[in-house]
Amino acid sequence: MNRRSMVGAAAAAIPAAAIATPALAQAMPEVRWRAASSFPRVFDVLYGTFDRICARVAQLTEGKFRIQPFPAGEIVGGLQVLDAVQAGTIEAGHTASYYYLGKEPAFAPFTAMCFGLNTRQMTAWFRYGGGNELAAELFREYNIHAITAGDTGAQMGGWFRNEITSVEQLRGLKFRITGLAGQLFTRLGAAPTLIAPADIYPSLERGVIDAAEFVGPHDDERANYVRVARFYYAPGFWEPGARLHFISNQRAYAALPDLYKHALDVACAEADSDMVARYDHLNPQALRRLVAAGAQLRFWPRPVLEAAWRANEEMVADISRQNARFARVMESYNRFRGDQFQWFRIAENSYDNFAFSAAQTVR
Amino acid sequence: MNRRSMVGAAAAAIPAAAIATPALAQAMPEVRWRAASSFPRVFDVLYGTFDRICARVAQLTEGKFRIQPFPAGEIVGGLQVLDAVQAGTIEAGHTASYYYLGKEPAFAPFTAMCFGLNTRQMTAWFRYGGGNELAAELFREYNIHAITAGDTGAQMGGWFRNEITSVEQLRGLKFRITGLAGQLFTRLGAAPTLIAPADIYPSLERGVIDAAEFVGPHDDERANYVRVARFYYAPGFWEPGARLHFISNQRAYAALPDLYKHALDVACAEADSDMVARYDHLNPQALRRLVAAGAQLRFWPRPVLEAAWRANEEMVADISRQNARFARVMESYNRFRGDQFQWFRIAENSYDNFAFSAAQTVR
Repeated sequence: MNRRSMVGAAAAAIPAAAIATPALAQAMPEVRWRAASSFPRVFDVLYGTFDRICARVAQLTEGKFRIQPFPAGEIVGGLQVLDAVQAGTIEAGHTASYYYLGKEPAFAPFTAMCFGLNTRQMTAWFRYGGGNELAAELFREYNIHAITAGDTGAQMGGWFRNEITSVEQLRGLKFRITGLAGQLFTRLGAAPTLIAPADIYPSLERGVIDAAEFVGPHDDERANYVRVARFYYAPGFWEPGARLHFISNQRAYAALPDLYKHALDVACAEADSDMVARYDHLNPQALRRLVAAGAQLRFWPRPVLEAAWRANEEMVADISRQNARFARVMESYNRFRGDQFQWFRIAENSYDNFAFSAAQTVR
Repeated sequence: MNRRSMVGAAAAAIPAAAIATPALAQAMPEVRWRAASSFPRVFDVLYGTFDRICARVAQLTEGKFRIQPFPAGEIVGGLQVLDAVQAGTIEAGHTASYYYLGKEPAFAPFTAMCFGLNTRQMTAWFRYGGGNELAAELFREYNIHAITAGDTGAQMGGWFRNEITSVEQLRGLKFRITGLAGQLFTRLGAAPTLIAPADIYPSLERGVIDAAEFVGPHDDERANYVRVARFYYAPGFWEPGARLHFISNQRAYAALPDLYKHALDVACAEADSDMVARYDHLNPQALRRLVAAGAQLRFWPRPVLEAAWRANEEMVADISRQNARFARVMESYNRFRGDQFQWFRIAENSYDNFAFSAAQTVR
């Protein structure tokens, strides 16, 4: 999906004569969809974004196109959203494509890559760097139309029972972490383990696992990990942003009037800036409360970051050798990343580095 | 304007009975507006964003609500957009509120502040930190309804005929720069001057001015400043982003059906992420060409940044003493800035700092 050409083409496609004809508006059909989120209601920004997209679509179609949102687990399990939409059991869903990398590793970069594009750079890649077109090509094989719809911003690196001061301390570490990042930590000698969110707290408490990562201060605070693992690491270098997608069954999507497609498209575009804005507003407050509750903030030691960078380069090369589609997506992604990283250092990052610390350092 | 409450209220306001009634859609009236941009067509992202907003609104209303966009100077001068919308000469416009700080200094922070919020933080302040409400209160006095609609990202610090290695070298420097940043450079001993964009190039060439700032690589390349002033400074610490607004005459806006208001609102929300994405895509390519054409990239020396930080704190305090509204807006802005700067250092900035340089530094 290319939003540029959609807007341009639609504007060009309105013939002067059509403006005097109210026929289309009168023909607006009633459409009802059921849609499932990969997130439970307790994660109010993750789930709430989905809720708002559905409300916005209703608003833009005067209630004619109603998408009923369900939290994870109510009609479909959180990780079964893609399957259910593909099968047409439900018409749509809100999910993270990397949950499905077991089907196809190329699903990973459409959500997040270790040392990948940050939130703003992801938006640029999807809209102008070919990301949307590559995602559309993959989702189409699953009978799905996908639109980017929200982002978390850079995540935290998770909660650790003990301090990590060297790469060696990662050896054998039982770390709850998902997806490609799990494979990365295996390469670093850790023992990644996938545990359902509800089981993380008791597992940390009993020492069944040594560490766990989830999202960032706002969501992590609700899970109360600070009580059982107080070292809180930054940054989550495997999720410098996590992009969500609104996915629709292709047959259901194709049957929509153009106006409803546009309403869905623009509601999701709004979510791309709204969701991270909400996190940016909530995270500082949550982090302050976590620190007051005993969280010990730590930055990853540079040798850990460097070892992880090297391991990630190898991992991407290895998967690319085995999977041509992953290789093709990563070729686009990494070319774009090279340009973005170089340019962001000049104005954006040099500004941030000075300004973010100046209030403490300039007297 | 508060997008949160709008979406929520609208969703709640659709009674179940209304869903079976197509009456509203049939009643969609034809509305035609004329709207002016503060930017000429040559600045294709600045002007193009406005063009896309108008196209999107037409698309979301099946061509019933048509906003005809005019570039700066065609029906209204670039800096007269607010006056024309206030008077109702035209129904709407796309502009930067800081162009009007001569009327009221509080217009400045709704576009950009020296050492202020970056692009993502501005979105969070407008949507969740009270920024939209404070802007609405001010614009209302000018008979205007305003919606945020696009951002440039962090700008460059401009083109200099000679290298700047100390604060002393700013003394007497004839620097083309606008708004509050001009006042800031006066405090630093420079001689800021406001020259229309078309006159910048010949003024630099003849040595009438020593330096000039405009936007960033993509726009600066078109102006060809590199041929007459080769030192290109980063960052533009007085514009860590510049937010634009879509402004509507309040009477014209109030007369719109709700659906058209929502269409305009969501089209502008899309612009907030789309415009900066387009810049992020175009700037790296433009910067490479500029460097190939002889641009010498320079970062501001830290003593210059520190002197500017101090001068800015004094300037904000001085204006706040004279103007209660500016003081109230800046109180909200600076409180939010404190939270954002502290939080962004933890995950976002620590990630960026490592990742942006790792490709060059990790072996």
